[in-house]
Amino acid sequence: MTSVTCQITISLDGYVAGPNQSLEEPLGRGGERLHEWAIATDAWNEHHGRRAGERTVDSEVIEEVVANVGAYIMGRKMFGGGEGPWDESWTGWWGEDPPYHTPVFVLTHHAREPLTMQGGTTFHFVTDGIESALAQARAAAGDKDVSIAGGASAAQQYLSAGLLDELYLHIAPIVLGGGERLLENVGDPTLEPVKVVASPAVTHVKYRVVH
Amino acid sequence: MTSVTCQITISLDGYVAGPNQSLEEPLGRGGERLHEWAIATDAWNEHHGRRAGERTVDSEVIEEVVANVGAYIMGRKMFGGGEGPWDESWTGWWGEDPPYHTPVFVLTHHAREPLTMQGGTTFHFVTDGIESALAQARAAAGDKDVSIAGGASAAQQYLSAGLLDELYLHIAPIVLGGGERLLENVGDPTLEPVKVVASPAVTHVKYRVVH
Repeated sequence: MTSVTCQITISLDGYVAGPNQSLEEPLGRGGERLHEWAIATDAWNEHHGRRAGERTVDSEVIEEVVANVGAYIMGRKMFGGGEGPWDESWTGWWGEDPPYHTPVFVLTHHAREPLTMQGGTTFHFVTDGIESALAQARAAAGDKDVSIAGGASAAQQYLSAGLLDELYLHIAPIVLGGGERLLENVGDPTLEPVKVVASPAVTHVKYRVVH
Repeated sequence: MTSVTCQITISLDGYVAGPNQSLEEPLGRGGERLHEWAIATDAWNEHHGRRAGERTVDSEVIEEVVANVGAYIMGRKMFGGGEGPWDESWTGWWGEDPPYHTPVFVLTHHAREPLTMQGGTTFHFVTDGIESALAQARAAAGDKDVSIAGGASAAQQYLSAGLLDELYLHIAPIVLGGGERLLENVGDPTLEPVKVVASPAVTHVKYRVVH
């Protein structure tokens, strides 16, 4: 059985996006600071097809978290394009070659034909709920893992439904003071820290969700 | 110059106490789970004069955080006894021999004579603000550190005033779902993770506050 994982960066005060999210600032005010640690790594650059940056333990974490992913699931808001029926000119935030390179299942209330991008990423739009999306993602992933890409709401739904096996938090040493919180409406999951990686930029803590 | 430190256990969702704090449940619903990691260590037992428990890396953290403390500062709520003028029969939650063994400066709006307990703990009640309490604590601590014992509000006040040098968080792998949050109303401090200690029970991350 493959694992259902989620790896996400949170601020020290528990936010995965800052306040006042908008089309111009999808991560909200200050939210881009969450990802400075990742932008600084060459693994990230490589994965995004850019030139190599600094090599750190953070690079290894990024390599690790993408290594065994066979499919992603993400919320509609993370895919973007606003609410309501689709504007089909919207193909995500990531340009022609999104950094997923696998099938990606987008949770939405509005049907849309699959969208094939460059580099192996195909977005599938799932309108019949998180369990259906997971079943489709598992089938697509084969013997690899399914990763919940985000945002907070998608992660919350899988965690509170008992469908998440592993939560890998990258705890950024910043205080956003408001925004979208990761760990609310998730009930009282039993979590076990199974791995910690420390860097000067961020603290990575992998939790096993005990079922 | 001595350091001003604060070490405190927070839940993964950022709370230092659970919801519905009361005299019967001073840490709120579920809040005692925050401290299970500490209760399991022999250093904690030793410090509290009880029999030795399990020896873990967590024991070393507890030894470290008390080793160089020359005085503590705490909020009125942490000292307890309810709001308003003092009921002088209240001498804290900790019995005759509190686990501080140094002067402790209690932030309050209500004057009270110093209270000398067994084992070297004397509670001093400070009514003229956090800077005065810090000056008195520094004088009492000599060349040792001053530790902000808690609760959340006292830690927030020292952090947001730029008076805190070090924040040592013990991140417990639990979700409390509500209660008293540590990192709100603290502005946007610059924090640097300088030490991480991992155990199966809790993740310790020490942050330097960059002034």
